[in-house]
Amino acid sequence: MTPPVGDPLLAALSEALPPDALGASDVELALHRHDAAPFSEAGRPAVVVRPESVEQVRHVLRTARALGVPVVPQGARTGLAGAANAVDGCVVLSMGRMNRILEIDAANRLVRCEPGVITADLAAAVAGEGLCYPPDPASWESCTIGGNIATGAGGLCCVKYGVTADYVLGLTVVLADGEVLRVGRDTAKGVAGYDLTRLFVGSEGTLGVIVEATLALRPPRPPALALLASFASTADAGEAVGAIVRGGHVPSALELMDRTTTEAVAALGHPLLAAAGGATLIAASDAPDAAARVRAMAELCREAKALSVVAAEDEEATARVLDARRMVMPALAARAERMPGEVTAFVEDVAVPRDRLPALIERIEEIAAGHGLYIATVGHAGDGNLHPTVVFDRSDPDAVRRAREAYDAVMAAGLELGGTITGEHGVGTLKRDWLTRELPERNLRLQRDIKRLLDPEGLLNPGKVLA
Amino acid sequence: MTPPVGDPLLAALSEALPPDALGASDVELALHRHDAAPFSEAGRPAVVVRPESVEQVRHVLRTARALGVPVVPQGARTGLAGAANAVDGCVVLSMGRMNRILEIDAANRLVRCEPGVITADLAAAVAGEGLCYPPDPASWESCTIGGNIATGAGGLCCVKYGVTADYVLGLTVVLADGEVLRVGRDTAKGVAGYDLTRLFVGSEGTLGVIVEATLALRPPRPPALALLASFASTADAGEAVGAIVRGGHVPSALELMDRTTTEAVAALGHPLLAAAGGATLIAASDAPDAAARVRAMAELCREAKALSVVAAEDEEATARVLDARRMVMPALAARAERMPGEVTAFVEDVAVPRDRLPALIERIEEIAAGHGLYIATVGHAGDGNLHPTVVFDRSDPDAVRRAREAYDAVMAAGLELGGTITGEHGVGTLKRDWLTRELPERNLRLQRDIKRLLDPEGLLNPGKVLA
Repeated sequence: MTPPVGDPLLAALSEALPPDALGASDVELALHRHDAAPFSEAGRPAVVVRPESVEQVRHVLRTARALGVPVVPQGARTGLAGAANAVDGCVVLSMGRMNRILEIDAANRLVRCEPGVITADLAAAVAGEGLCYPPDPASWESCTIGGNIATGAGGLCCVKYGVTADYVLGLTVVLADGEVLRVGRDTAKGVAGYDLTRLFVGSEGTLGVIVEATLALRPPRPPALALLASFASTADAGEAVGAIVRGGHVPSALELMDRTTTEAVAALGHPLLAAAGGATLIAASDAPDAAARVRAMAELCREAKALSVVAAEDEEATARVLDARRMVMPALAARAERMPGEVTAFVEDVAVPRDRLPALIERIEEIAAGHGLYIATVGHAGDGNLHPTVVFDRSDPDAVRRAREAYDAVMAAGLELGGTITGEHGVGTLKRDWLTRELPERNLRLQRDIKRLLDPEGLLNPGKVLA
Repeated sequence: MTPPVGDPLLAALSEALPPDALGASDVELALHRHDAAPFSEAGRPAVVVRPESVEQVRHVLRTARALGVPVVPQGARTGLAGAANAVDGCVVLSMGRMNRILEIDAANRLVRCEPGVITADLAAAVAGEGLCYPPDPASWESCTIGGNIATGAGGLCCVKYGVTADYVLGLTVVLADGEVLRVGRDTAKGVAGYDLTRLFVGSEGTLGVIVEATLALRPPRPPALALLASFASTADAGEAVGAIVRGGHVPSALELMDRTTTEAVAALGHPLLAAAGGATLIAASDAPDAAARVRAMAELCREAKALSVVAAEDEEATARVLDARRMVMPALAARAERMPGEVTAFVEDVAVPRDRLPALIERIEEIAAGHGLYIATVGHAGDGNLHPTVVFDRSDPDAVRRAREAYDAVMAAGLELGGTITGEHGVGTLKRDWLTRELPERNLRLQRDIKRLLDPEGLLNPGKVLA
């Protein structure tokens, strides 16, 4: 690409970037405006840069700083909080070309990689060496490791295996001034100095640009067995979750679907949900005594007045159970297709202490009814992390208004129940105002001080996380 | 205590502290000078304060700031890096009276407590509710949760269950200006804002004073089975460790003892070490298939040319195996008693990527020989974390010089092998200079910037971690 005459930004970027690393066509700029969040402001970038090296990233940041231009890092734009949305006139730093797996070290159970590696590709590569990278965000087949780290992504297996943050041993970060910062270590344990690694995990590109990560790995996960239980109400399902937790089980997944979700998946034809109840609970175990664990959890479900329980005894039956969870998004998409207008499914994210999950689901049902909205709630019950999905017509201003109000009401309910406005999706622009309602003033002040320390000019992903 | 006439510090402290919370006798001041680290400078405090409430802590910090007096927080002074050592004229803030367990929440698997709770007391209390707090630093019967968090303490079970940091969900911290900061959350998952909790974990009292913690708990640990294998060399034992890791095992302990340690424990009469080899490996499993795991690991030890392997099949035999590890410090103490002079055992701490453990042990053996020192090395082999213990006569200036030089040589060897100067003991004053050799300049600069942000006057535990 030849820079337009007189555009100092493109001219300066071109000094150390090849033409094919720069994109400024209308199509490209439009494509890179948004991540997957609704309700989140997005500007028009000046240029999209696709760097291939740390040096190129440094050049972009130095150039942007010299010219006072904001920089917005992007992974695969699968985020759900607007953290990767462009701001007007910014450089979008699209990290997809830096997608090399640099080293898989089986003896030390770690992997070094660039940020643009697709999560599923990394998981497959380490599986090829007899190892496992557990984090499994829903978008794992398209999202990137850099994006996972930047947002602090979670997933289904967190309840047993933890979140992305738990696997990040070290990072290389390019700072706002173009300097390279190395944090963390290659060892399993280490306490040399303040933990700066965790400061960058979940910082959504506002403190620096991740250009390399060292991640811990685990031995392969054994095959899981799963159960599916139907309940008359979410309260009963919540009782079962409580009994499973109190019983000392650590399931490898513990997923709850409310009545609306259960009906949607049943409507799509899942055989186990034909006689749909008021709530569905799926529990899996990949422990060496998985069969006994699943039987014990099934018994706890029955004691919690389950209407029916199917405890899988083999791989095939387990796949059928887990399909019910995988069918949630397709089921909601099918539901959306039957609705008039430009229908969108907005996946929300809120977490509460796990024993307050049934109360939160009830509140969400009330909110849906009160706002005349279709809200299907599914959640990581073992973590107290719920995803209410609002399906609404975005071409209908009244539906948009009601969806926004319902979103606010869900956030308020989460905080009232002692929870957080985001369990795993992040703050971005979507929840920036809500962050100020969750965190005490002194905490917010320290957050802003740290942002100012690392990005005094406020050019790194401005307006995300903090105003 | 009546403040001496004319002492403005004691007078100001007395305004909001009862007399029995203040100590300034020679005995008390001497008692609170040091933690358990050798080679680490220590000053004489002006006063020891034993607060009983957050408000009292705030008063101490506001008073100290107004008068420009440094404040050194202390737990049980079992630390091994001098992080709790007094500085001249400081207020020692001894947190032992704030030792209440505030809430055990079994449904949400968490506990809230004050910092002065003894780790073993916390573990016992949550065990009484059918839960487990796994972190098990060697001093767990006397050290405190606040000290564990401040130093980022580890232990034997880290290889499977992680370190203290992994259990800290939230903290209440009193800052240098006396303000109260709440960081973290009560939910299992959460990504609302930057992770400030991890910034305080391992910060050794230099960024704030921890006054409350919310800790995650686990289901009880099942009973473990263990094996003990003797090898001709640490290289062979290292092969066995590598095979166990590559074999996908996650032992609940994996401990390596070098020849010197093996001989010391054998000399104390442990039956399994009578025919002492060149190295001893202890591996435990508390998995549901522990018996099969122990058998499999035993076979891997035999394949790595173990001279003998004892695989316990019951609790009693397991206790006998684990006794060999527990006898290490008593065995070194017995050895010290047979040496002339004022003999001290200095427990060092260094970690490397786990496949470099045998190389590090060999280097330590060379260092011991080269400096004419008795160094017994034992380590958490599954984490690559070694504790070389130097037993020397601290009344002999030449022995002290050689011990110091050996310590430097061990740190250098750890860094050369891609490791860290501290796996779990922390930096304190002991490793402050070495920290500047481990961390790149840009990282150090950010560490100092964060210290300045939170403690602009430099009154919080000055001279620890950073110069």
